[in-house]
Amino acid sequence: MSEPSTAIEAYKQLQKSLNRVLQVSPVTGERVPLGEIDFLDARHSLLLRTAIELAFREISNVDRILCTSRVPEKNYFVFNKTTTGQSLVSRPVNEALFSDDLESIRLLFETLDAGISPDDLRRRLNSWNIELLQKTLYSMTMAFCCAIDIQKSGDRKTPGTFFEYFVAYMFSRRLRVNPVRRVEITSQGTKISLPTDFIFDPGPKRRKFHVPAKTSTRERIIQVWAHQRVIDGTLGQGRFLGTPVILTETKLDKKKLEVIEICLPLQWQIYQAHISQLTRIYYLDIPRPYIMLNDVMPPINVRPFGEFFLESESFA
Amino acid sequence: MSEPSTAIEAYKQLQKSLNRVLQVSPVTGERVPLGEIDFLDARHSLLLRTAIELAFREISNVDRILCTSRVPEKNYFVFNKTTTGQSLVSRPVNEALFSDDLESIRLLFETLDAGISPDDLRRRLNSWNIELLQKTLYSMTMAFCCAIDIQKSGDRKTPGTFFEYFVAYMFSRRLRVNPVRRVEITSQGTKISLPTDFIFDPGPKRRKFHVPAKTSTRERIIQVWAHQRVIDGTLGQGRFLGTPVILTETKLDKKKLEVIEICLPLQWQIYQAHISQLTRIYYLDIPRPYIMLNDVMPPINVRPFGEFFLESESFA
Repeated sequence: MSEPSTAIEAYKQLQKSLNRVLQVSPVTGERVPLGEIDFLDARHSLLLRTAIELAFREISNVDRILCTSRVPEKNYFVFNKTTTGQSLVSRPVNEALFSDDLESIRLLFETLDAGISPDDLRRRLNSWNIELLQKTLYSMTMAFCCAIDIQKSGDRKTPGTFFEYFVAYMFSRRLRVNPVRRVEITSQGTKISLPTDFIFDPGPKRRKFHVPAKTSTRERIIQVWAHQRVIDGTLGQGRFLGTPVILTETKLDKKKLEVIEICLPLQWQIYQAHISQLTRIYYLDIPRPYIMLNDVMPPINVRPFGEFFLESESFA
Repeated sequence: MSEPSTAIEAYKQLQKSLNRVLQVSPVTGERVPLGEIDFLDARHSLLLRTAIELAFREISNVDRILCTSRVPEKNYFVFNKTTTGQSLVSRPVNEALFSDDLESIRLLFETLDAGISPDDLRRRLNSWNIELLQKTLYSMTMAFCCAIDIQKSGDRKTPGTFFEYFVAYMFSRRLRVNPVRRVEITSQGTKISLPTDFIFDPGPKRRKFHVPAKTSTRERIIQVWAHQRVIDGTLGQGRFLGTPVILTETKLDKKKLEVIEICLPLQWQIYQAHISQLTRIYYLDIPRPYIMLNDVMPPINVRPFGEFFLESESFA
């Protein structure tokens, strides 16, 4: 493959390489990608990193417009690009979390990609300031998503799939294991292969992670609790930790450039009480109404994604 | 309001009238439609009927193209309209279920809208041939959805909302009660108003119906089982019957004009066993792989929507 020169080219090369293994679909009978995600392969790490670095280059000279934020204590801006008469506006970006500091990004990739011992990896990650780590993770995802937003109107699929890759990369490299996307279940003597979000198995005597990755959830988040319930019910309680990773819950009014957060904290409490138990809900930009869920009884642990890197071994 | 002259005009008048009551959103603080659905109001019945009749007029002279059906024993066609260089293709229509017989539609509306006793209503509906009833219901929904499909590319919201209205009309007029769209829950001393799909309460000593309405579901159907679980867990087991109504599970390849059905029968069995129990799953065009779920142990009752009209009182 030729050297990618744009973020979308790097992303497409990554996607093509990840999708090169085909399987026969049980639904349509066609040969479709297996959906295998292998970020322990250094070529895939590099393509992800290239996509992000090129995205930063693409947005570096683009106009930024401050939004009217209706979210207390958070300010947002959008990237705004006008080409051939068309004005394209990105998703809203949290000003306090976004940084152009490519050095931190390079350092994070190098730490995660290095062939060092698990102890060394933990030590290096523990030396990070948690706020800087969170900013770095947020900026990596936002740079790519915004670069796509201002390139083509209405493409929500590319940022969504990119975000899945990003989360898979981070879990794979932190836990040193690739995910699977299906689990085998035996129910009443019938063997069923159930498609799931990412499942990471860090090895014997450690719990597995069930990791849905979504750019935003709104009322669809009930699916995450329902999938966790199916996993608990078919594969056993307490073996799989539900730890979804979500980018943000902001909503932009494109005409008024006004930003709100759409949150349903009372419904989350009902889901946690009546459907299943999620262990962590990680955010890149935590919505304020969800922070207080850490303090209700029973608590729902909503945390910055950066904390995963420091606490991932404490769940064992 | 002026007399509507197109299907979309009638639909918009209906929507405007249903949305005239506003409430303050707990999420955004803005005044938004309450989402009240009142089909016992004769003006709303008439607008729904007008939208459907105008849709039939709009598609009556439009070209029909036979699809390549990869669904055994079912044939599909699409409506195809070319205007100002743009070729618009409708969703696939099941040939054996679609009929232009406006007389049956008129008769069904008249039966449901008539101010007759519940016994008379039951007698009149029981006199229908079940196949004719199913064809009539299927044709009513498909005519409107296809009229929208060939008018504007990519509008999935209008057919989706229309289908919700259609299902609400049918349940309201059969049960003689309007739906609500939220339930009040007390959990740990906190009162929560939980948004739901349609809830119909036919009166004392009768079970209520929990009715999600979807034009297709695929993997999103897990939400229906999850909502049913939340209702059972917070409001009591066995009081609310889960009876979703779904249009179809077909998928059209627009280039090849090839139709498949996307079905996940083994996953449905897992959901029914591990999340909650649905009482009926009604379809306008039942996918073949789901028919066999009526015969597994435990069965999942997947039925033509027409049967609802004949059996709705037997759940009491």
